[in-house]
Amino acid sequence: MNELDVFFNPRSVAIIGATEIPKFGYYQSKYLLERADREPDFKAYPINFKKSTIFGKKSYKSILDVPEPVDLALVLVNTRQVLKVFEESIQKGVKAVVLESSGFAETGDPELIHVQEKLKELIREKKGSLRVIGPNCVGITNFDNQFTTTDTIFGRLKVGGISIISQSGVLGNIIIDLARSQGLRFNKVISMGNKIDVNENDLMDYLLEDEGTKVVALYLEGVTRGDRRFIETVKRFTARKPLVIVKNGRTEVGARAAYSHTASIAGNDAIYNGVFKQTGVIRARNFYELFAYSKVLASQPLPKGNRVGLITASGSLGILACDEMATNGLELAELAPETIARMKEKAPHFVSLKNPVDLGPAQMEMYMTCQKALFEDPNVDMFLQIFCIPEEVFKILGSDFENRIKKMHRLSIQNKKPCVVVAFSPPWMVQKFTDEGLEHDVPVLSEVQLAVRCLAVLFQYKKYLESQE
Amino acid sequence: MNELDVFFNPRSVAIIGATEIPKFGYYQSKYLLERADREPDFKAYPINFKKSTIFGKKSYKSILDVPEPVDLALVLVNTRQVLKVFEESIQKGVKAVVLESSGFAETGDPELIHVQEKLKELIREKKGSLRVIGPNCVGITNFDNQFTTTDTIFGRLKVGGISIISQSGVLGNIIIDLARSQGLRFNKVISMGNKIDVNENDLMDYLLEDEGTKVVALYLEGVTRGDRRFIETVKRFTARKPLVIVKNGRTEVGARAAYSHTASIAGNDAIYNGVFKQTGVIRARNFYELFAYSKVLASQPLPKGNRVGLITASGSLGILACDEMATNGLELAELAPETIARMKEKAPHFVSLKNPVDLGPAQMEMYMTCQKALFEDPNVDMFLQIFCIPEEVFKILGSDFENRIKKMHRLSIQNKKPCVVVAFSPPWMVQKFTDEGLEHDVPVLSEVQLAVRCLAVLFQYKKYLESQE
Repeated sequence: MNELDVFFNPRSVAIIGATEIPKFGYYQSKYLLERADREPDFKAYPINFKKSTIFGKKSYKSILDVPEPVDLALVLVNTRQVLKVFEESIQKGVKAVVLESSGFAETGDPELIHVQEKLKELIREKKGSLRVIGPNCVGITNFDNQFTTTDTIFGRLKVGGISIISQSGVLGNIIIDLARSQGLRFNKVISMGNKIDVNENDLMDYLLEDEGTKVVALYLEGVTRGDRRFIETVKRFTARKPLVIVKNGRTEVGARAAYSHTASIAGNDAIYNGVFKQTGVIRARNFYELFAYSKVLASQPLPKGNRVGLITASGSLGILACDEMATNGLELAELAPETIARMKEKAPHFVSLKNPVDLGPAQMEMYMTCQKALFEDPNVDMFLQIFCIPEEVFKILGSDFENRIKKMHRLSIQNKKPCVVVAFSPPWMVQKFTDEGLEHDVPVLSEVQLAVRCLAVLFQYKKYLESQE
Repeated sequence: MNELDVFFNPRSVAIIGATEIPKFGYYQSKYLLERADREPDFKAYPINFKKSTIFGKKSYKSILDVPEPVDLALVLVNTRQVLKVFEESIQKGVKAVVLESSGFAETGDPELIHVQEKLKELIREKKGSLRVIGPNCVGITNFDNQFTTTDTIFGRLKVGGISIISQSGVLGNIIIDLARSQGLRFNKVISMGNKIDVNENDLMDYLLEDEGTKVVALYLEGVTRGDRRFIETVKRFTARKPLVIVKNGRTEVGARAAYSHTASIAGNDAIYNGVFKQTGVIRARNFYELFAYSKVLASQPLPKGNRVGLITASGSLGILACDEMATNGLELAELAPETIARMKEKAPHFVSLKNPVDLGPAQMEMYMTCQKALFEDPNVDMFLQIFCIPEEVFKILGSDFENRIKKMHRLSIQNKKPCVVVAFSPPWMVQKFTDEGLEHDVPVLSEVQLAVRCLAVLFQYKKYLESQE
């Protein structure tokens, strides 16, 4: 068993700074205490300096008062109390600490930087028998067993293949809100903060062996200067699973802001670019790209080549897609004569039977015919479809589009070719498409150019794997 | 009166190809006939080869049978009937034709190219007394008087300052669906199609003098080769109003697709780039950028300089914004000492009081204090705020955020400084923010980088105007 397992599946947790007042710590306390009620193999102990009960459960003044062993200490207290509760947690013999409190090295204050150094020293003394995530983070969420140290609300969220490692709090909880809407299904989400112990290397190694994780999305502000381990870990990882990275602090101004945020040294961006290229990392420019690339990599097979078959309901958006293909190493597939013949049989007069196949307001049946013909064309390696539907039409014919997505999934599986869908529509329609797509493993995006780059990323990763053979 | 006025405010329209069957033409027929019932100064005549009534109104076999004069002929018939109804319309003495039928030069079919040429000849013979929009378009929508030749549903859409000129059908109707959701308010939307007569130059000149139009967003696939008039028209336009252009068909593959779409010669993209730079055009890379830039240009004052004051609820998104500023000619404002002093008074320990001001989960009051301090700082030329709110918090405190947006608007007006808001949230929350922003002329976007580029575009246009003085 890996020593990091305790973060994702602890048997007992002390919530140091537990509270029933609606402020930071409220959701975590409530959720973990309720989870302990529900699950016989899981225990949660509230620790609060003043209260004797929290949400009706007995609360302790110190972790040292807990009568049973504790696997994991979750620390939510103010900065100035951290050192004390940390020392007590060590004394109690916890295996791991999630230290969410902020206000350390990132403040630039010498006194607080010193406290962070002191914490590091305590960890070093334990020689690997104590692992710590944080400070300045929201810790972890495991969708597999619904254990979390954040204010995640699981609701109807289903577990999936995407795991996230993040140096920021935002990616620890806000993006889980975004997950549903963007059609992402997570496996594990880890926010690392200032990384005084556990860092991206430890977590990549862990997630490489984690069966549920298919793709890792990593948000990074900086790695330790000259850290060879990063490059080696990444190489080992990308040889078996795709890795998408947002590296923030590309410019000098951004780098200064990164230091104020997590005390990270952003480093030279050109060097990162070089390393990423060498090691098969897929670089995303922002969080929406990170989501989109991860979603597509987690759900689609890798393409054999770079030739795209494109069906569009809008000529303009078709052109936009072509331009983006040309600048991202993809080709517009030259359709086989039999493909064109199959489409021609049912084509109305206004249809353009070249690739891109511009079907405009053609009927459902025509769309289905062309979809099938393109998927089965030997010159097509991947498939892109752009929907562009007036709201009033969608209100009446919505289920037709659901059908098209269902069929697309079947064709994708049968032909072992990846596909991506664009819904150029108001958010409520994009959401309907996304939800339907999620049911059938068809990634739906609202932007044409981003959709094309998703296909390019599949091809890029495929080429990287080949280059390593 | 400008000769193009008849397109936007005709007194009488013949709908040639009117239909009450739910297919192409249905919405236009229904809407215009109802509008004629409602408005005493407007008449609509359905023309249908077979039917004698359409939606209960007397229908004519030919426009020549209409007993009264007709200003505008709206042509919706099949390609092969176009020439005949076009000649009859001329005979009837209409001033203008909106020719929506497609299937002409864009098919590449010599016979159909010939028909298009024949139409051009007929127009030339009329020496300017007949103006034609199309073919292969959806014509115009005037939000001012709710006259439309498309299937636009006006609903609760309010009239605004953005007018769109587009060479594509998509931008004629689908984006009106998007308008509400993206927080855009239109004045006039024109889809030009194959441009056998009226083109972007005519329309820019018209909209330059149009009082309701504050900004023009232009979607272009190509202009006539070597057309000096384009450059002159654009220069004249940008001297008084901002112009945002998406030029499609940047690459060879894209250019080929553009020819199939509207028979346009896309031309050399580097030349377009040069012309745009010289003439103060703001180039957008896709439709979402087009919407965002137009929205910000239509609602915000131009900034005095390029220094941005930034308040963020997320350090990561703050860094992302800083990187994007640095690569788009903007600077992070160095805050005045009194600004920092004002903020410090109310600041909790976790707040970073440099710019970007990272407030994290601080209280409403703190946000308000900092908002005001930044707007009033003499070193700040424009203001950006990034909201990043967990769904559960927003459900409880939604009205707080509305308040912040309202106050932002007041501060923006008082200090004559532009502002943009980012809501890094699921679509339903972005929508709430957008709607609220629309009420108070505060543009809301979901993407940090795009928001920064919007501010950059304001500065870019300001610099262009200065260079022309």
